[in-house]
Amino acid sequence: MYRGGYAGKILRIDLTDKSVKEEKVTEALARQYLGGAGFAIKYLYDELKPGTSALDPANRLIFAVGPLTATGVACSSRMAVAAKSPLTGAMGMALAGGHFPAELKMAGYDMLIIQGRAEKPTYISIKDGEVKFRSAEKLMGMMTTDTQLFIKEELGDHNFRIACIGPAGERVVPMACIVNERRAAGRKGLGAVMGSKNLKAIAVRGHHRPAIADAEAFRKARQAMNKAMKDSPVLYPAFAKSGTPMVVDATSEMGILSIRNWSATGEIDMVGGLGDAAQAKAIVNRQHCHDCPVGCSQVKLVTSGPYAGYLSEGPEFETTYSLGSQVGVDYLPAVIVGDRLCDEYGIDSISAGVAIGFAMELYEKGIITRKDTDGLELKFGNHQAMIEMLRRIAYREGLGDLLGQGTRKAAAKIGQGSADFAMQIKGLELPAYDVRGAKAHGLNYATSYTGADHNRGYAFQEIFDIPIPEKVDRNAIKGKGRLTKWNQDVRAVTCDCATMCAFLLDMAVPAVACQNTADLVNAATGLDLTDKEVEKIGERLNNVARLFNIGEGFTRKDDSFPKRLMTEAIKAGASKGQLISQADLDAMLDEYYAERGWDRTGTPTPARLKALGIKSR
Amino acid sequence: MYRGGYAGKILRIDLTDKSVKEEKVTEALARQYLGGAGFAIKYLYDELKPGTSALDPANRLIFAVGPLTATGVACSSRMAVAAKSPLTGAMGMALAGGHFPAELKMAGYDMLIIQGRAEKPTYISIKDGEVKFRSAEKLMGMMTTDTQLFIKEELGDHNFRIACIGPAGERVVPMACIVNERRAAGRKGLGAVMGSKNLKAIAVRGHHRPAIADAEAFRKARQAMNKAMKDSPVLYPAFAKSGTPMVVDATSEMGILSIRNWSATGEIDMVGGLGDAAQAKAIVNRQHCHDCPVGCSQVKLVTSGPYAGYLSEGPEFETTYSLGSQVGVDYLPAVIVGDRLCDEYGIDSISAGVAIGFAMELYEKGIITRKDTDGLELKFGNHQAMIEMLRRIAYREGLGDLLGQGTRKAAAKIGQGSADFAMQIKGLELPAYDVRGAKAHGLNYATSYTGADHNRGYAFQEIFDIPIPEKVDRNAIKGKGRLTKWNQDVRAVTCDCATMCAFLLDMAVPAVACQNTADLVNAATGLDLTDKEVEKIGERLNNVARLFNIGEGFTRKDDSFPKRLMTEAIKAGASKGQLISQADLDAMLDEYYAERGWDRTGTPTPARLKALGIKSR
Repeated sequence: MYRGGYAGKILRIDLTDKSVKEEKVTEALARQYLGGAGFAIKYLYDELKPGTSALDPANRLIFAVGPLTATGVACSSRMAVAAKSPLTGAMGMALAGGHFPAELKMAGYDMLIIQGRAEKPTYISIKDGEVKFRSAEKLMGMMTTDTQLFIKEELGDHNFRIACIGPAGERVVPMACIVNERRAAGRKGLGAVMGSKNLKAIAVRGHHRPAIADAEAFRKARQAMNKAMKDSPVLYPAFAKSGTPMVVDATSEMGILSIRNWSATGEIDMVGGLGDAAQAKAIVNRQHCHDCPVGCSQVKLVTSGPYAGYLSEGPEFETTYSLGSQVGVDYLPAVIVGDRLCDEYGIDSISAGVAIGFAMELYEKGIITRKDTDGLELKFGNHQAMIEMLRRIAYREGLGDLLGQGTRKAAAKIGQGSADFAMQIKGLELPAYDVRGAKAHGLNYATSYTGADHNRGYAFQEIFDIPIPEKVDRNAIKGKGRLTKWNQDVRAVTCDCATMCAFLLDMAVPAVACQNTADLVNAATGLDLTDKEVEKIGERLNNVARLFNIGEGFTRKDDSFPKRLMTEAIKAGASKGQLISQADLDAMLDEYYAERGWDRTGTPTPARLKALGIKSR
Repeated sequence: MYRGGYAGKILRIDLTDKSVKEEKVTEALARQYLGGAGFAIKYLYDELKPGTSALDPANRLIFAVGPLTATGVACSSRMAVAAKSPLTGAMGMALAGGHFPAELKMAGYDMLIIQGRAEKPTYISIKDGEVKFRSAEKLMGMMTTDTQLFIKEELGDHNFRIACIGPAGERVVPMACIVNERRAAGRKGLGAVMGSKNLKAIAVRGHHRPAIADAEAFRKARQAMNKAMKDSPVLYPAFAKSGTPMVVDATSEMGILSIRNWSATGEIDMVGGLGDAAQAKAIVNRQHCHDCPVGCSQVKLVTSGPYAGYLSEGPEFETTYSLGSQVGVDYLPAVIVGDRLCDEYGIDSISAGVAIGFAMELYEKGIITRKDTDGLELKFGNHQAMIEMLRRIAYREGLGDLLGQGTRKAAAKIGQGSADFAMQIKGLELPAYDVRGAKAHGLNYATSYTGADHNRGYAFQEIFDIPIPEKVDRNAIKGKGRLTKWNQDVRAVTCDCATMCAFLLDMAVPAVACQNTADLVNAATGLDLTDKEVEKIGERLNNVARLFNIGEGFTRKDDSFPKRLMTEAIKAGASKGQLISQADLDAMLDEYYAERGWDRTGTPTPARLKALGIKSR
């Protein structure tokens, strides 16, 4: 019964010997891990020996969709892409939407496990269960849009959907991403893992929507969710029109939009150049992921000036920060160019922008000089330099090669105290929210198994003042451990396992996220999960991922912040005076670990593991 | 019977009142004009009142394929695009290959006639005879690759084939082109006509190959042609590998590769940077037009340096000249960038490059200064300046706006003797071959109804030393009138009407081009044309086009050359000392007119028109 909403099959592809094997999604797996990141992380934990290099052929690169993907449920064409991360050394997992996830499911698979390394550049086509290995020699070096076009032409069907790497992934740049259409599994360097396997692309085409176990219950559950979406005061009225950049104005007003490598948060008003009004002016079109009625993806175009003609599906809020405020640029056309180039080169726009901001601060402080930048005037606000550095990161040229390793490694090589300016946690560069003024955001950054990652436990309560599950003071320390566990677990299961869009969770069903997921999943698959069991799946995932990271040597000391956040208070604006001291962090961590049933070193206790049904390795 | 190889239908679209009308391809029309440019030019001559502005809604923009298109005959997915040209004021006709032509035929049409002007930005979709007008508001400003992608996404089928304009066509730049996939109907400003009609794109999708009248005869005719192609010493061994740039080395050796606005032909060796070896190194992939077994289109990619990541389906030989030798640039990556940008902006790479070379010469001579260029150091060889000028042409900025009008108008506005450096005939910029050392090429440039256009009567005899129809001395004057008439008529019918690829004619069937066309067309359509009748169709087309131009005020004085070609001899190399004096030109014109049965003013005599069955307006 449980197989309704699942394609029911896992495809294991070994690139070394070009073997292909189909495995089954068992009911036990589905009950315990649901799908998406749950499946992927469980398999990575079981199959990858601790200490294996992320670039070793043994590393798995896993693409996994959820039980609702391609069933017609709104916002469900999402996938988890996972591997050990070459950027952090921890569990690497990133989500992507678009059309590829639904197409993969319709082609017959819940999960692709890719292992080994192809001898020569290769791409894989999957059409309704038919898998072929194809030469990618003629695609090497191509940017991602061209790559997708040439593959479609070669396959004789432009309706294939393609996930691929660009020049950066080919060069195994540790912050390379994987791009499908104009969406990306952006962070944690998964593109480098794909590149290390000599895999340029995966093309999928399918015609089979999964069966539904209980059509009437499914209809009702969808109806309820669609009503919640319609009733949301934010989803259609604001979010569908502005997309994620709608929070540029809000975070700026709250004094938590990070500026100039986090040195000037609250001090410079960038709303004029980067805010909602400026972004709205640049919008020319809107894109929808498969089965999505919202269409939050705003297409922006530069229509005059030196960058005229550049178009981007974005920039999203995070890129507005990373290639905008973070590098001191408030010229939106340059952010649009940078965003497009990140997609074309196949690099993570957040890590790349933060790495460039880091280098700009070092340059302005004289820690690196014009000699190190090969003549580039790498000052905050120099958008030409930002754009050129993106190219150098992608092609591993000069300082770009170093920055592409991430700020943690770059700082270690540069020395001279530069680590103080490396805005990263566990090797992953910080997202936009200046967490000195949003403590649950901070605790989530510090404890996420992927490093400083807003997507693992976004504290919407602090940004939108929503009292769910309880009223929150963004600058309070107490209660943030409990809140962060809840945010992380609910998000892990609804977004990462069920692969529903995060914006649905935040804006339409925050109070009933697990029940909504249970209703839909049960009706689609024939499972009979309660909302509590659903939440527990999220908790299970966070524990397995933690065990994976412990195996890689991560401990409590890695659940921390860059020095700046703990020693320099925000100097101006609505969050003036805020910081997170070591004592604050310790208090939050203690509460968080206790809530999680982890000991004071951050290790899950045997009791909690047993309660969750996890067998540790 | 004759309808076999035709879709049999003409689609007339009036954008002003959004009306759609189907008309028939009559047997009389097919016998007299065959298809493609024949149909298009006949309709333009009949329907367009002399003196109508090219940008008037009354101008027709016509897309016409041939009777062999989509029948499976090799090299037949070609189309003629025609309108009165905003660049020259004469008949504007350009050819394009790719997949669009075959798809248009399979969607049900031999010809689209587009007239009127849409009130708002519009695109048209045609799917198996179903025509829809759609809003293009959300596509405005997009470059051509993005335009095509967004339309495919909006139509929910990426297998649509799309012809569109870029930012330049939207801005009615007189050298704007029409792009389908990565091919273009490049010259004569047809993209501006499309822009003037507020028409951003045409999307076609079809599933019906045309019927074949006599399958056995068709099989035999195809077999014969395929054998000729296989036996060609050039087509597969060289051309399929190198494409058109294979003549960079050859023309350079002959001293007729034009350099630096034709001021330095033979003086600078650019083969190292732009020649066959350099081009071969950049090739990563190859593209085929629909039904084409050759695949001459070489895809080139920049893999390192400041332009890394840029990819172009080309540059073809002509663009290697216009954005390379003509502007003194022998850095192939810059030519690749320029080529791609011309396709993306939607501007003709030949006219744009020649216009930039013209401006560079004026700048070096001090006729224009840094003030006129808004600070750009517009010297020969400055590839950054060349690339920036392409953008300014597309967006009509400063000097770019002037150059985008073409060198004839630009020179008229600049004055100060600059007209001497405007390398144009009838307002169309000169292609690559320095005709001072290739006189039949020269006479063809001078007399082509579209202006200086290598495609109207390419004298392959002069380049490849092929004695068909007779042995030719490229520097002789005598005999060039007869040869040019033959080249123009054969090419007009086989390439422009039957819409077979020119390279097939030049490299596989030059001696039997008309017989080959007759055999294929008769078998496909049920017509019973002899080779002489086929040739006569070509002659008929050239006469009707001449009548059209006479109606627009063109006379013998317009069958001429820029002053430089008649007064400055080539200074070095294998064609040193060569020029075409006024006396040479007069002698060639007299012979040519006599061969054509035109009087000494270049006007077709009533007797010749009667013999060709042409009723003048």
